[in-house]
Amino acid sequence: MRTVRTVAELRAALKQPRREERSIGLVPTMGFLHDGHLSLIRQARAEHDEVVVSLFVNPTQFNEASDLAAYPRDERRDAALAAEAGADLLFAPPVEEVYPTGFATEVRVGGPLTESLEGVQRGAGHFHGVTTVVTKLLNMVQPDTAYFGQKDAQQALVIRRLVRDLDLPVRIEVLPTVREPDGLALSSRNVRLQGEDRRRALALSRALQAAESDLAAGVRDAAELTAGLADVFSAFDVEPEYIALVDPETLAPVATVDQETLLAVAAKVGEVRLIDNTILNSNGNGRA
Amino acid sequence: MRTVRTVAELRAALKQPRREERSIGLVPTMGFLHDGHLSLIRQARAEHDEVVVSLFVNPTQFNEASDLAAYPRDERRDAALAAEAGADLLFAPPVEEVYPTGFATEVRVGGPLTESLEGVQRGAGHFHGVTTVVTKLLNMVQPDTAYFGQKDAQQALVIRRLVRDLDLPVRIEVLPTVREPDGLALSSRNVRLQGEDRRRALALSRALQAAESDLAAGVRDAAELTAGLADVFSAFDVEPEYIALVDPETLAPVATVDQETLLAVAAKVGEVRLIDNTILNSNGNGRA
Repeated sequence: MRTVRTVAELRAALKQPRREERSIGLVPTMGFLHDGHLSLIRQARAEHDEVVVSLFVNPTQFNEASDLAAYPRDERRDAALAAEAGADLLFAPPVEEVYPTGFATEVRVGGPLTESLEGVQRGAGHFHGVTTVVTKLLNMVQPDTAYFGQKDAQQALVIRRLVRDLDLPVRIEVLPTVREPDGLALSSRNVRLQGEDRRRALALSRALQAAESDLAAGVRDAAELTAGLADVFSAFDVEPEYIALVDPETLAPVATVDQETLLAVAAKVGEVRLIDNTILNSNGNGRA
Repeated sequence: MRTVRTVAELRAALKQPRREERSIGLVPTMGFLHDGHLSLIRQARAEHDEVVVSLFVNPTQFNEASDLAAYPRDERRDAALAAEAGADLLFAPPVEEVYPTGFATEVRVGGPLTESLEGVQRGAGHFHGVTTVVTKLLNMVQPDTAYFGQKDAQQALVIRRLVRDLDLPVRIEVLPTVREPDGLALSSRNVRLQGEDRRRALALSRALQAAESDLAAGVRDAAELTAGLADVFSAFDVEPEYIALVDPETLAPVATVDQETLLAVAAKVGEVRLIDNTILNSNGNGRA
């Protein structure tokens, strides 16, 4: 009998012939697919034998019942788009398949990753809902890789933490935000932007661009950069929920942009809550 | 592209060739192995190609630092016993391999399964510690079957709930409590029973036997049965922490033993906290 002391040794010793023949990529979605989702599906298609798209509007991650009720749905359209992008399997469970009677378990990531930014605005319960359903989906599908979008930057960090902490045997791949030609980050919620709000929604991406320009012009002070962003929001008559310059791994606020920094913004435009972000480099180039 | 709606359909569609060649059985332990553990290892050996025994005294499930500090340890002896019982691999990680810096995730089963009995005595945090580490061990090893003892009846229920709720791809097998010739349930903690306390520790198993006798004699009323058990505890000069007659699936208290009922007891004998249980049938036969 051998004794091993690390997870790496353990897995090597067991050298499981898992999915030797067919590798699996999973793209978890809440449906109403846009080009951001499709870029994830195409990447999964390029990297795996079997591509699974899950479609589940997870009630436990909505902090507002009205947001859940208004969340757009069109499964037929989603199925056609997913198939066209290369999916083999659409997993579209009813709520009672995911949360049957007697369900009593919650997976929580604690600390600043879930208690800051979106955790403040939507409550930490939002992320507990996300981590619980993602754990379930990963266990249901057992993919080799699961794909997420950088648009939900904080969610991606929380999921990376979850996967490391629970030793989930999956690789997490985060792909860049896809945007409309005018810069608006794609979101299933964009369809709900009414009239003038579509133009006002540009406040978020334009503010990010302004920060990149300021940074290129030599501004490094977080307070000064933030003030510049606030001016852009004002010009679009949009009240930001937060403008955050934070460490891209820990989400700790930074005072000076002298290394890679996550700039994240959130605002309600009309009835629609939007988020956007970019990674700032101290050389003044945004990455997103 | 196919659309599926249940986890069963999903898994069938993916029909993963997981571990086709070698099946894995896991026996999670906190070490200081006794015949109860060895019965689990032997069963795993009989049912699987590869048998993994984990040895990890999980700090997060101890509600008292003194209990953690006093928990007996002897890895060399454990390795010899595990090998003899048929283990192929001993997984004995240091604490920092299981909970590295930055670890921030907790898996919680809520409700009566974790809030009653041991959850009252040790706090629900005890079970959160158990479910978190068991989730991790299951993900680390990815066994086909994991083995637990009926002595920790509530823990077994909580783990079954966890596995169902998080869709963990593993079968849970719970094996009967192993006892000393005089009836004392085997426990790693028994080694700490000093002098007279070893005899007093019989209060638990003798109380269970008394309940089985009373039931065989026609007593069905939970209050009457409980009073009989309390007398046995008194005779051994032991104060029970709880004497519980509860539904063996939900842990809801029962007033009359007219179907299968879990009888669970806990008591501190000297410095050592002990638990024991049996399943009562309404025909008066204990199962354990």
